[in-house]
Amino acid sequence: MTTSTDATDRAVISELDAARRDFRDELLSAGLLFATGVEGLYGRGADFERVIDSIDARVLSEGRAAHGTAPKTLRFPPVFPRESFEKTDYIASFPNLTGAIRTFDGGNKEHRALLADREAGRDWDSHLESAGTMLVSAACHPSYSTLTGTLPEGGELLDIYGYCFRHEPAIDPARMQAFRMHEYVRVGDPQSAVEHRESWIPRGLQVLEDLGLDATPVIANDPFFGRAGKMLAANQRDENLKTELVVRLYGDLDDGTAVVSCNCHQDHFGETFDIRTADGEVAHSACVGFGMERIALAMFRTHGIDITRWPEHVRSELVA
Amino acid sequence: MTTSTDATDRAVISELDAARRDFRDELLSAGLLFATGVEGLYGRGADFERVIDSIDARVLSEGRAAHGTAPKTLRFPPVFPRESFEKTDYIASFPNLTGAIRTFDGGNKEHRALLADREAGRDWDSHLESAGTMLVSAACHPSYSTLTGTLPEGGELLDIYGYCFRHEPAIDPARMQAFRMHEYVRVGDPQSAVEHRESWIPRGLQVLEDLGLDATPVIANDPFFGRAGKMLAANQRDENLKTELVVRLYGDLDDGTAVVSCNCHQDHFGETFDIRTADGEVAHSACVGFGMERIALAMFRTHGIDITRWPEHVRSELVA
Repeated sequence: MTTSTDATDRAVISELDAARRDFRDELLSAGLLFATGVEGLYGRGADFERVIDSIDARVLSEGRAAHGTAPKTLRFPPVFPRESFEKTDYIASFPNLTGAIRTFDGGNKEHRALLADREAGRDWDSHLESAGTMLVSAACHPSYSTLTGTLPEGGELLDIYGYCFRHEPAIDPARMQAFRMHEYVRVGDPQSAVEHRESWIPRGLQVLEDLGLDATPVIANDPFFGRAGKMLAANQRDENLKTELVVRLYGDLDDGTAVVSCNCHQDHFGETFDIRTADGEVAHSACVGFGMERIALAMFRTHGIDITRWPEHVRSELVA
Repeated sequence: MTTSTDATDRAVISELDAARRDFRDELLSAGLLFATGVEGLYGRGADFERVIDSIDARVLSEGRAAHGTAPKTLRFPPVFPRESFEKTDYIASFPNLTGAIRTFDGGNKEHRALLADREAGRDWDSHLESAGTMLVSAACHPSYSTLTGTLPEGGELLDIYGYCFRHEPAIDPARMQAFRMHEYVRVGDPQSAVEHRESWIPRGLQVLEDLGLDATPVIANDPFFGRAGKMLAANQRDENLKTELVVRLYGDLDDGTAVVSCNCHQDHFGETFDIRTADGEVAHSACVGFGMERIALAMFRTHGIDITRWPEHVRSELVA
């Protein structure tokens, strides 16, 4: 996204924001999403969830075709230990997206003080303390602490599905603060990690094609924070560590929306979580992440708001 | 739970804690749950999730038998606006269970200061600010803001399923910090709310019986915080607003574990969320909440850790 203040750019951004707002309003009117009063946080209606479950069934069938029964199923709640969060180094790279949990840990007296501030219309956050937990930032993040130590021969392959949180309030319905991600994660030697990432690019494209979506693979980088982040982003591109599968939700108004991401983490998590291969080397890892809400939104944008009028070949992918 | 320090009581509590720890260790060894390093936060394995999905299918079939296609499906992410949280008054009654979200909202300079504190091993929470959101405390809490205004004739009936957070770290696997709750929520006139609560007591018992669980309905109260909370709890009992369906996980070592809760909120949410019936009266509400993880744990406790050896009539309830 451009940060130029050139008048032509401003006009383009404004047209893009109007397109995003119109799409969101359409989703809300149809009862596919429900407003909560905060940008990027929505309730989901029955048809929206049916589409999510249908996408998930297709992702799982691709996973079975690729890996058989090898993947270990792991499902995490949306909250995980700060100690694991620290090892992801997320606070260094994406502090602005972070969600830290605080809670009340006092007695009657401290509670009365909190309620007095609340009664007076003052902020009561100062009465809270860290709960030692964080919101899950990427579905795979809570999994690495379960692998600390030595991996079995051949490494591990994980099937992970769960809610993620990223604090980036936006009009664009495709930029939610809370959304689901289904991942296949490979942890093992460097070659197996690279192969995992590479092999899921065509598989991801096939899944999207079967859902009637026109996606393009794009070499990409994460939105690393701040000045120091610019170098990390450039490195990630140069080393070809991230490929996003992109669908155009708003025509030519932007470069499209990433709905699937294929990433190689090299030895980052192996190092910080102390994960070793059977050979004693620091493990490498890679993952493919399907952004479930974004894929659903791409389908509503491409095939229309009313699922009963979707093309037959797409309807055949819908679960009951 | 007793707070006496009598020696006999201490011994009983200790035996209870040992039973809880042993059960948790059994679940971890079997790969049904995965430890994360924080009490009450677990990853879930494939069989555990299959049981959860099977319970959910049974809950949904009971909902269809009772209400046909009337319930409106609503699914919320685990995070909701602080403005809605304020209207639940949860911070007054259960501050100790609360989860408030904070995030980083500064620039490069502020980020460097955060990282410097982190580098020095100091707490970096002071660099964060409120994100304007809270963890969902009960599955139905995010739904009431969608009903502000005047209800349709006959009120509303909602089917809600989602993750809840309660900060109460514990050895007991049945006391998780993050768990799922499936609710049917009635919002309408006082009589319809009372009827909803009452009618779901036998329905809940039937669901549990079909899952092979021996449950007992018990008039109960919420664990309101502190001294002032004692009165709220007594009121709730006196007015018969809460019935829990209780299963004994640890024999006679405690009074059992509540796995389903049938609650009448009277006009509490109608008042604070400004919800009116078609007649212009303040709406009353009631809900039944199925504690999905607790029901699953009760099944593993009752039928054994290995689902392939469960009784045939229970296995027949398992989804593929």
